[in-house]
Amino acid sequence: MTTCHYPPQRILLGPGPSNVEPRVLQAMLKPILGYMDPVYLQCLDHIQRLLRAVFETENRVTFSMSGTGGAGMEACLANLIEEGEEVVVCVNGFFGQRAAEIAARWGARVIRVEADWGQPIDMQKLWEAYRNSSARIVVMVHAETSTGMRQPIEQLNLLRDVRDAILIVDSVTSLGAHSVGIDRNGIDASYSCSQKGIGAPPGLSPVTFSERALEKIRGRKAPPKSWYLDVALIDKYWSSDRVYHHTSPALMNYALCEALEIILEEGLENRWARHERNSRAFVAGVEAMGLEMLVAPEHRLWTLNAVRIPPGIDDARVRSRLLQEHNIEIGAGLGALKGRIWRVGLMGSGSTENNVILLLETLRRVLESEGFKPGC
Amino acid sequence: MTTCHYPPQRILLGPGPSNVEPRVLQAMLKPILGYMDPVYLQCLDHIQRLLRAVFETENRVTFSMSGTGGAGMEACLANLIEEGEEVVVCVNGFFGQRAAEIAARWGARVIRVEADWGQPIDMQKLWEAYRNSSARIVVMVHAETSTGMRQPIEQLNLLRDVRDAILIVDSVTSLGAHSVGIDRNGIDASYSCSQKGIGAPPGLSPVTFSERALEKIRGRKAPPKSWYLDVALIDKYWSSDRVYHHTSPALMNYALCEALEIILEEGLENRWARHERNSRAFVAGVEAMGLEMLVAPEHRLWTLNAVRIPPGIDDARVRSRLLQEHNIEIGAGLGALKGRIWRVGLMGSGSTENNVILLLETLRRVLESEGFKPGC
Repeated sequence: MTTCHYPPQRILLGPGPSNVEPRVLQAMLKPILGYMDPVYLQCLDHIQRLLRAVFETENRVTFSMSGTGGAGMEACLANLIEEGEEVVVCVNGFFGQRAAEIAARWGARVIRVEADWGQPIDMQKLWEAYRNSSARIVVMVHAETSTGMRQPIEQLNLLRDVRDAILIVDSVTSLGAHSVGIDRNGIDASYSCSQKGIGAPPGLSPVTFSERALEKIRGRKAPPKSWYLDVALIDKYWSSDRVYHHTSPALMNYALCEALEIILEEGLENRWARHERNSRAFVAGVEAMGLEMLVAPEHRLWTLNAVRIPPGIDDARVRSRLLQEHNIEIGAGLGALKGRIWRVGLMGSGSTENNVILLLETLRRVLESEGFKPGC
Repeated sequence: MTTCHYPPQRILLGPGPSNVEPRVLQAMLKPILGYMDPVYLQCLDHIQRLLRAVFETENRVTFSMSGTGGAGMEACLANLIEEGEEVVVCVNGFFGQRAAEIAARWGARVIRVEADWGQPIDMQKLWEAYRNSSARIVVMVHAETSTGMRQPIEQLNLLRDVRDAILIVDSVTSLGAHSVGIDRNGIDASYSCSQKGIGAPPGLSPVTFSERALEKIRGRKAPPKSWYLDVALIDKYWSSDRVYHHTSPALMNYALCEALEIILEEGLENRWARHERNSRAFVAGVEAMGLEMLVAPEHRLWTLNAVRIPPGIDDARVRSRLLQEHNIEIGAGLGALKGRIWRVGLMGSGSTENNVILLLETLRRVLESEGFKPGC
């Protein structure tokens, strides 16, 4: 029965949520503890250590926000931006666009550095826009979930030749599947999500803040308006102060903890390599079928694979058939790419050879029956 | 082993989180669905219907925010308050105080109507403060988690004789255990939490908004700064528009759904009566022991029972012994009541005769061994 009481077992190969390993689900059956229980506080300390390893950072202030990735994005922007300051936001997809909108809501005078959706931001253009502004904050999406594009972040650091930049990087669709290298790349703040590359259910947002970022927050004229996302207050709970802020979502944190342990057991390098291998296999398969990828090879994410919808094929109908007839979810295009691409997520426990084979074969059959001639 | 990998099974009789029934935990093992999966959208529709029943409202805009109760509080204030407007906030405990602080963050000129912690707000005083202000918004805590006081909300409606009030009520510690009666009491916005009286794990915040509240939100000069808590945007996902906002935390919503079904199977009246019965039994027991309650009988919550700590007894030591030796959690006092009261939660599946008997007997033994003479 496919009702909400008995949801079907889908293979989630869209932009997220992704499937969760039974071991992570089982962790949510552990006994709930009070938010000041010494054993629970140990658990939070452990999560912080695990998150630092996955973010590749020594940042003390590294924890999970009690909301989805969007809450993490807003937390970074709301805490770091002060009313009226210039902020450079790189926009080459839906989530860059969203960051620009949220930054504007929080009072930033947003300077957009744009590229076509699916194309990388030009570092020279960014450098010039930054130099010609009074901005300290630069926002960049590492893994653009709307296009499957991976933005190089290794040279963001060069902006510091101009002035003491605060670099905010969206790692929602990269953390746990691509190297983010917070410290190596000189990133000051980053937000991700508990699902996708991390492999826990949706509901939490891992974040990390450098000492430079915290200094900017401490120097604010007034605290950020948002109390729920006030990083300084939340830090007072996660740090040794242990000041109550809100009731910590214990089961979600247990799941996150388990998922992070799985990541470190697999090993970061192995995990990145697995995501790369399965993405390359999938791309080889769809290209052999005569389909095209949206993004050039050197800029592709391994987590989110954007396939161009061939002419004459009905986007919604194919996705619906995959879902209803085969229990496979793939994602639609967002914004300007709606109807033009499918978004295929191979993330976390969903990034497997079996899923690649199954999806390729199923997609081929559905497309053939819709009149598409594979291999042409 | 009491480590964070094998947390002990505590009996949670503090201010929350409360214990969760196995049936609710099992619901979190259901397959995760995508946020646009037709079956998942059915589930969200179902949650809305169940929440309306528990809030006792016909409000169309009734859903769960993807954050804890604090996110719900902030959502109500951030969406309804416009910069510079006067807002009346009733303060007789920690959470009224918090509402006043958050209202001020969002630009309200806050007019506080105060009572001693543990005492009800005087309706005449509130009426006068409201009449002498230009405020439309009045914020009141129904169930003050810091003191165990239940504020009568049945006459808030009378403020409408002055002008067209927007009544915001905090039902975090009452919903599912006390009648909140949103429509009957003319309340325009209310926020609660997924745990406590509701019986799901912490992590979501049920909210409801009347047409009058939505009209005020639609009339804003600018959208609220907070994107994550923007009720109009979130409504576009929960309503038939189905516009993507954030990745819905599916497992948390499954748990909420199951907990709400359990509530309606038990029956609201039966559930309220159970909470009343167990609270009265607990109070009779502690009073027989010679302990005193903070709040007068007619204003006591059934969910949160504040017991005065007898002279000469070490607050932290007793709580720690209950936790470490007996796996029973009770809560400390907050703010001005720290060290002066214990907060005993009897909520949701934790409100049972067995828990009352166990806690009374255990507390008696611990207090005796700490030198307290029960019955004196």
